[in-house]
Amino acid sequence: MRESPYDRESFFAAYSQMLRSQKGLDGAGEWHVLRRMLPDFAGRRVLDLGCGFGWHCGYAARQGAARVVGVELSEKMLARAREQNGAAVITYVHMPMEEYAFAAEAFDVVLSSLALHYVEDFEGMCRRIFSTLAPGGTFVFSVEHPVFTAEGTQDWVYGPDGEILHWPVDRYFSEGARQTMFLGERVKKFHRTLTTYLGALLAAGFAIEDVQEPQPPAEMLELPGMRDELRRPMMLLVRAGKAGE
Amino acid sequence: MRESPYDRESFFAAYSQMLRSQKGLDGAGEWHVLRRMLPDFAGRRVLDLGCGFGWHCGYAARQGAARVVGVELSEKMLARAREQNGAAVITYVHMPMEEYAFAAEAFDVVLSSLALHYVEDFEGMCRRIFSTLAPGGTFVFSVEHPVFTAEGTQDWVYGPDGEILHWPVDRYFSEGARQTMFLGERVKKFHRTLTTYLGALLAAGFAIEDVQEPQPPAEMLELPGMRDELRRPMMLLVRAGKAGE
Repeated sequence: MRESPYDRESFFAAYSQMLRSQKGLDGAGEWHVLRRMLPDFAGRRVLDLGCGFGWHCGYAARQGAARVVGVELSEKMLARAREQNGAAVITYVHMPMEEYAFAAEAFDVVLSSLALHYVEDFEGMCRRIFSTLAPGGTFVFSVEHPVFTAEGTQDWVYGPDGEILHWPVDRYFSEGARQTMFLGERVKKFHRTLTTYLGALLAAGFAIEDVQEPQPPAEMLELPGMRDELRRPMMLLVRAGKAGE
Repeated sequence: MRESPYDRESFFAAYSQMLRSQKGLDGAGEWHVLRRMLPDFAGRRVLDLGCGFGWHCGYAARQGAARVVGVELSEKMLARAREQNGAAVITYVHMPMEEYAFAAEAFDVVLSSLALHYVEDFEGMCRRIFSTLAPGGTFVFSVEHPVFTAEGTQDWVYGPDGEILHWPVDRYFSEGARQTMFLGERVKKFHRTLTTYLGALLAAGFAIEDVQEPQPPAEMLELPGMRDELRRPMMLLVRAGKAGE
């Protein structure tokens, strides 16, 4: 099976120290926006692609989901998910999301939080997600924003005194792999344009219901560096719907 | 009436020299993408907001539109439109688009090419455009891309030898007026996020049918500077639909 960068010891240790890993959903700057975009989970069948520590699976279970499947490539993350976010309705599956067997109309909600930019074939994923959703189903996902992934270094441009000057955009229309540094490790992500993200959803048959570029919540703005998050978009959040019968 | 920058002599003279002014639609790098997004014009009532020299009005008329209304703030541009793109079915109206009387369900197609970034209240325009469209109607527009408008100078960052380093993004979430230089004149435009553009359409009731960030056509790529257009998105093109009855 393909290796997950999250299974490297040093990377896993560093990731585990992040606020979003320690505090879960409330430690994630985009959660206040993503939460508003989620459908009602009560009685629904939920699939979480790239579920990581299982925070969203646990949330769906607490909101009354009938069944939750979390798919994750990293064994280390899954072990933590089972420990911290286990529930009777949740099944964790150790597998690359690209290899998951998407049964037709098996789910009412598909989620994916900050995982799809690791996937090369987004169009193919959209088609499989559309087919595995029942009519009336919802697909909600977050990815790193095309503005954030385009140039590739994923860092600001700094002035002579180390001050932030601006965010660089380059190679925007050169879609494909980017080798980037994240938590001190080399990680491979895929850059796609906004045109490709939204076009793949529309081509698969989805209606685009909501598109959000989250800003930090007001109460986090005084944290160090947080005001700089207003200078460029870092994430793209989308809700897409499959028409009911 | 509000002054149009296009009515300043020097600016008008400079704008008239641009390839898109001389050659019309075929001189516009985005036309090959925009054309594909346009609905069938045969027998349709068409409204063009910020019609400029009337190239799109003329195109709609040649495609068989039953009636075309072009609204434009600049008298100089309208004079040229009447001269170069006049047709029996076209009515040119000298007026800021914000003050146009949008009669309910009076049009089948609303177009706007590179004009809505001069308008402060995009949400209000979306509501009026939605109401003036008949059921089944289509709104197609182009604007400068949020990546292009965010920082404000609308220029690349250059290295010591004058070479392009990258495109700067800054102030992305600070929506509002930008004073920018265009053709040697100070021009006021409005920066909006992608979230705001798409959110305003959805809030007005539109379905988002197509979103495109055009790249130059292959045959223009050898023109000076054209390959740099692959380094950052300059325009955002959207087709939105009003559901039929």
